[in-house]
Amino acid sequence: MRMRKLKWAADFIANSEVNVHNPEIYQGKWRELLNRDCIHVEIGTGKGDYWIGMANLYPELGWIGIEKQESVAALALRKKDTLEQQTRFIHGDAANIDQWFAKKEIDVIHLNFSDPWPKNRNKKRRLSNERFLDKYHQILSDDGQIIMKTDNRSLFEYSIIEFQNFGFKLEEIYLDFRSEQHDEDIISEYERKFMEKGPIYRAVWVKGGK
Amino acid sequence: MRMRKLKWAADFIANSEVNVHNPEIYQGKWRELLNRDCIHVEIGTGKGDYWIGMANLYPELGWIGIEKQESVAALALRKKDTLEQQTRFIHGDAANIDQWFAKKEIDVIHLNFSDPWPKNRNKKRRLSNERFLDKYHQILSDDGQIIMKTDNRSLFEYSIIEFQNFGFKLEEIYLDFRSEQHDEDIISEYERKFMEKGPIYRAVWVKGGK
Repeated sequence: MRMRKLKWAADFIANSEVNVHNPEIYQGKWRELLNRDCIHVEIGTGKGDYWIGMANLYPELGWIGIEKQESVAALALRKKDTLEQQTRFIHGDAANIDQWFAKKEIDVIHLNFSDPWPKNRNKKRRLSNERFLDKYHQILSDDGQIIMKTDNRSLFEYSIIEFQNFGFKLEEIYLDFRSEQHDEDIISEYERKFMEKGPIYRAVWVKGGK
Repeated sequence: MRMRKLKWAADFIANSEVNVHNPEIYQGKWRELLNRDCIHVEIGTGKGDYWIGMANLYPELGWIGIEKQESVAALALRKKDTLEQQTRFIHGDAANIDQWFAKKEIDVIHLNFSDPWPKNRNKKRRLSNERFLDKYHQILSDDGQIIMKTDNRSLFEYSIIEFQNFGFKLEEIYLDFRSEQHDEDIISEYERKFMEKGPIYRAVWVKGGK
């Protein structure tokens, strides 16, 4: 998500209680910090609609949002500036998740309308590139899941092959997720806009025997 | 494909030179019969547009069309009633393919707009049900492929999971195949009709290490 730089963003993040400023020090301790047995992580929250909406819908789970871009992260944090035990945010690059989370510490990873990085030369930046899959595999619990939703056909095609080749097992696939009602899922402002233009794709993978 | 019964169909098939009346006797001998090193099979030809079109486009390959329904098979055969060495037809049930073809005898299987059998109680009839996949795996050569095209979203979703679970490796996936030009592929009358209504899905699997 590209947007103009917000001058107040850096200060806002620095003063946020919901933002975890040194996530490394909680490695292996997130279940304790959030006081929840089951920890969900969204990588790339954008403005935070999905992260906040899901956390409100499922308060019995732990919810950690991650966003790299400062201005967007600040907008997400502004929407959720009251500290609740089961919810945290990390303003940082997901390339470091293996330093923030211990092996098998995370139960579900959400990739919700990730940046498609359409050019082939940028494919290593896609959150479904094998370089990320390797880290997801490390931090996921044995029956851990990855849930992806996107409106971007090319990203979805790429991801189906990339996850397979890494050894994740595809458990569910929907090529027009919004053609049926799914009450258990939050529709972000971004998704609402794209739902009218074409199908929303969704897949669920489980950690394989690799 | 459902259609009314054609009275002339049984006689027409019985007298066809292109139709192979006892395919069992050619088990292990198709490369010799067709005088080609590489044998392609289409299961469920319908009226034969794809089978005939591909055979004309690639005369250097062997092409065997299979269709179970008598009236439809007769229509396909009426379109191709001149015997050519590299092309044959089998009017029969694909559940018997392992009796017609020897192990590893076939190089590519085409499933082109197969009957989706939408009701769950009929899923064993789908040509991507594991009961068929097991037979495909037997008759395919080591680097053999299965190429599926369909307009039916549910059948495609089902197939992606079913092939994975059997151990086939997904090599290519297209969620809107006709959004780009593909000169190497025949568009049947049936496909032409459905292309205007929504996306055409396509996948290519290779025989895995199973």
